[in-house]
Amino acid sequence: MKSSAVLLVNCPDQKGVVARIADFIYRHNGNILFADEHGDAELNLFLMRIEFDSTDLDFPLTDFSRHFDPVAREMRMNYQIADMSYRPRLIILVSKYDHCLVDLLYRHQSGELKCEIPLIISNHEDNRPVADFYRVPYVTVAVTKDSKSQAEQQILKLLAERNPDFIVLARYMQILSNEFVEQYPYRIINIHHSFLPAFIGARPYHQAFARGVKLIGATSHYVTDVLDDGPIIEQDVVRISHRDTIEKLIEKGRDLEKVVLSRAVRWHIENRVLIYGNKTVVFH
Amino acid sequence: MKSSAVLLVNCPDQKGVVARIADFIYRHNGNILFADEHGDAELNLFLMRIEFDSTDLDFPLTDFSRHFDPVAREMRMNYQIADMSYRPRLIILVSKYDHCLVDLLYRHQSGELKCEIPLIISNHEDNRPVADFYRVPYVTVAVTKDSKSQAEQQILKLLAERNPDFIVLARYMQILSNEFVEQYPYRIINIHHSFLPAFIGARPYHQAFARGVKLIGATSHYVTDVLDDGPIIEQDVVRISHRDTIEKLIEKGRDLEKVVLSRAVRWHIENRVLIYGNKTVVFH
Amino acid sequence: MKSSAVLLVNCPDQKGVVARIADFIYRHNGNILFADEHGDAELNLFLMRIEFDSTDLDFPLTDFSRHFDPVAREMRMNYQIADMSYRPRLIILVSKYDHCLVDLLYRHQSGELKCEIPLIISNHEDNRPVADFYRVPYVTVAVTKDSKSQAEQQILKLLAERNPDFIVLARYMQILSNEFVEQYPYRIINIHHSFLPAFIGARPYHQAFARGVKLIGATSHYVTDVLDDGPIIEQDVVRISHRDTIEKLIEKGRDLEKVVLSRAVRWHIENRVLIYGNKTVVFH
Amino acid sequence: MKSSAVLLVNCPDQKGVVARIADFIYRHNGNILFADEHGDAELNLFLMRIEFDSTDLDFPLTDFSRHFDPVAREMRMNYQIADMSYRPRLIILVSKYDHCLVDLLYRHQSGELKCEIPLIISNHEDNRPVADFYRVPYVTVAVTKDSKSQAEQQILKLLAERNPDFIVLARYMQILSNEFVEQYPYRIINIHHSFLPAFIGARPYHQAFARGVKLIGATSHYVTDVLDDGPIIEQDVVRISHRDTIEKLIEKGRDLEKVVLSRAVRWHIENRVLIYGNKTVVFH
Repeated sequence: MKSSAVLLVNCPDQKGVVARIADFIYRHNGNILFADEHGDAELNLFLMRIEFDSTDLDFPLTDFSRHFDPVAREMRMNYQIADMSYRPRLIILVSKYDHCLVDLLYRHQSGELKCEIPLIISNHEDNRPVADFYRVPYVTVAVTKDSKSQAEQQILKLLAERNPDFIVLARYMQILSNEFVEQYPYRIINIHHSFLPAFIGARPYHQAFARGVKLIGATSHYVTDVLDDGPIIEQDVVRISHRDTIEKLIEKGRDLEKVVLSRAVRWHIENRVLIYGNKTVVFH
Repeated sequence: MKSSAVLLVNCPDQKGVVARIADFIYRHNGNILFADEHGDAELNLFLMRIEFDSTDLDFPLTDFSRHFDPVAREMRMNYQIADMSYRPRLIILVSKYDHCLVDLLYRHQSGELKCEIPLIISNHEDNRPVADFYRVPYVTVAVTKDSKSQAEQQILKLLAERNPDFIVLARYMQILSNEFVEQYPYRIINIHHSFLPAFIGARPYHQAFARGVKLIGATSHYVTDVLDDGPIIEQDVVRISHRDTIEKLIEKGRDLEKVVLSRAVRWHIENRVLIYGNKTVVFH
Repeated sequence: MKSSAVLLVNCPDQKGVVARIADFIYRHNGNILFADEHGDAELNLFLMRIEFDSTDLDFPLTDFSRHFDPVAREMRMNYQIADMSYRPRLIILVSKYDHCLVDLLYRHQSGELKCEIPLIISNHEDNRPVADFYRVPYVTVAVTKDSKSQAEQQILKLLAERNPDFIVLARYMQILSNEFVEQYPYRIINIHHSFLPAFIGARPYHQAFARGVKLIGATSHYVTDVLDDGPIIEQDVVRISHRDTIEKLIEKGRDLEKVVLSRAVRWHIENRVLIYGNKTVVFH
Repeated sequence: MKSSAVLLVNCPDQKGVVARIADFIYRHNGNILFADEHGDAELNLFLMRIEFDSTDLDFPLTDFSRHFDPVAREMRMNYQIADMSYRPRLIILVSKYDHCLVDLLYRHQSGELKCEIPLIISNHEDNRPVADFYRVPYVTVAVTKDSKSQAEQQILKLLAERNPDFIVLARYMQILSNEFVEQYPYRIINIHHSFLPAFIGARPYHQAFARGVKLIGATSHYVTDVLDDGPIIEQDVVRISHRDTIEKLIEKGRDLEKVVLSRAVRWHIENRVLIYGNKTVVFH
């Protein structure tokens, strides 16, 4: 059976990087399937994603570091290696709105999202039936004004027990504390229902309506300790008109949020996203 | 020969408005060609655009007010009537960047923009050749830090002499004073090179690049006394990627700015834009 | 409680049509909420959609024809009147692919599609679980090469018993006979997975891949007796690249099909679609 | 001063291709700036575009073949090498419609299109003024029904004298003979005003209007001996509505044609387009 792996590289720009990596893979009997790279001249930075056929590799992929570390050291690379057959573990946090959750679960079941979903955590009971339908465990952790920090502790414990690779906030309506976020750096993906950086914070559709914009947007980004400010993974917009009431904006926005979030989740799973500074490179 | 007129109406929502207007036009032997309306339930506001064949009207269009005023009074309407054969007078202000200017002049010449352009005013000589090519008078008014207010006076004088119906800032890189703007309320159209309200102010492409957005935008709006805050007429976006340097953003943005500005100018000319609050309704 | 109705009109273009209709509604104490019209100068045709508040109408809406028929006769109108509180009955036909079905059922449950779904008919068992989840009856009618006409009879019987207002082919992979289609003229909506009229018939994604197009599309249309030739209700496209294998095209296409079909279904439910010739006008 | 070059490669897929090429460039002191590749598994084909800094190359770029041929032979590669400072020679053919011509000339002047334009050939005088304005020689070759073949001979002679790298048909309304096309295989770029393969041939906007599509398109492609059937370089679409008359379609289409054609021309100039089978790969 065929197997493949992805190598993500981040290093100072320098002559011969591609040659060294390509040569390494070739000498160990891999076959490059896709290669994509990006240089940031200003930052003198070189970023690369290489997907290669690892079926005939002359060492087990689990030993990759041992073999590649000398190259990496010499070239001052940061890198990640991922077995493409590995299905990362995703835990979803959700409140009452179900459109993003339903969409993710459907795409998971249909095979589009190649991950495991060991758990859904919510502060409400509402979405239990759909979780049951898709046979994903569902746990509620109620959050009140006073229990916020306690609830976070409880969620962190649930997460720790399931050991997720990443977390998706599928319209989870609680703001996470910095302590929480720092446990999963660049491993929490949020969907914000505006074209960031416009309309940061609460009720962005209402803000958009009030400003009279002609397009509304949605933004998927990694969560950092500044609200709605993390590296953007994907954005999209849809045209609206004066005929659209706030209710219609929210409805149109739902379709946008689903699509934007699912793209981001998918690219994250497929190891297509490289973070540098407060930005991302997405290798398609 | 056929002639037509546009009636723009703004009044409190109430039963029978459409009937009264339609009946008025019918009784005076007009024929409605297009009718479009919008109700804002929250503000209890009714907005309407009616384009009608005025060829056989039983009074000259110049007498419209005299005949229609009683209806308008009864229904507490604000209204404007426009003869569609009238070509509004547009004066363009521009600095060095020529893409919007060239685009507007081409569309004017090709018959897309049914207006007169009696004058182009610039703070630089650079765009004189293209103005000459399209046979539009071109006057320069230099602006320095110290001469700003004096320059504005000179421009206002030039405008007053030509009596424009509206003014377009086709990448005019000077911020106009409130005194200037108030001379032409909702009659100055600007193109801002971002998806407002994101990236207000200077160097929006640089701001967009720094934030790592996945789409860049352009916004055409009426100028008010708050910078980049006036009623939005049109917006659009284009997708960018990590491959796009700032230079490429600026280049992609140029195409966007041209299209967004020319749409706004056209809709303004065709009496399709109604302003209410700080928003617009554009009747297509 | 508020109630509203939609009047769809189709008649020869003539002076005073809008006035007559608006006056009729006003005299009977209705209040026009939205009005939109379209004239086809070439065909001398006038089309109109009026949505009006019918709460205080001075006759029951069920008597509309009796009151309006004289106006209609005089103006040679074809018209339809619809009570907006009426939820039309939709029966869905589907084969194995579930993406459109799941999307329609979700939008139905979330209140976006204001219709009843008394039945789903399929030639396979596969989609029973999701039908059960959304509590919609599900009946299978197997179709083999030899049983095709018999199966159609059976489906027609099932339909006749439930008396649907319209039928949606949500990726139903059987071509319906003309006899079938003629039972429900302009009441069957299909989703075709190409940008019609490109790639008519079988395996359009494969055709698109072979031709090397840069965008793929989906088209929702009324079914007529010529394959993929009925009046188009909605179309949209999505960009693809050389990186997209046929499998990826199919995947990207799924998102497109869902959105395009659900828009068409919704506009049909909301009485926004007028058919004339082999085209539609959709009043937004 | 910095210089760079592009290597376009097309060969059977095999292990070590990337390594061999990257190693070759590295050993000769080049520095890879961008690399992009595409494998077509079905055809067992490997396509690659590498842009590299050639400033410090240890041989003159003009000697590239001599050094690279052994690698190419061993790997059974077809390849092209291009000095990015070379400005390819483009000759434009145009009839009366000027929008694509004006757009190309503006983009050329503004530095977006890094090519030479030694000549414009037209069958009409109409576009001479704009050619004069941009200081590009303009020659007319009248075409009548009877003089068609003679005119082609004359054009071929004009071309031969100027030795263009490629030719753009910027709305040139004459169908070229196969004999003509074969002189410039995959070196003639056309803009067709429909979303191919829909609406092949004459008057595509009229065809689109008649069919009642909801989007219109434009397609830029290489000219082959089958009408409107060559490899597609770029396509795009724009939404239309029932309000759009044929005249409006044509107007909206103009903006589309300009953008689609200029992208194709640009990518061709930047050596981003690889042809295989009847398709293109465009490396962005």
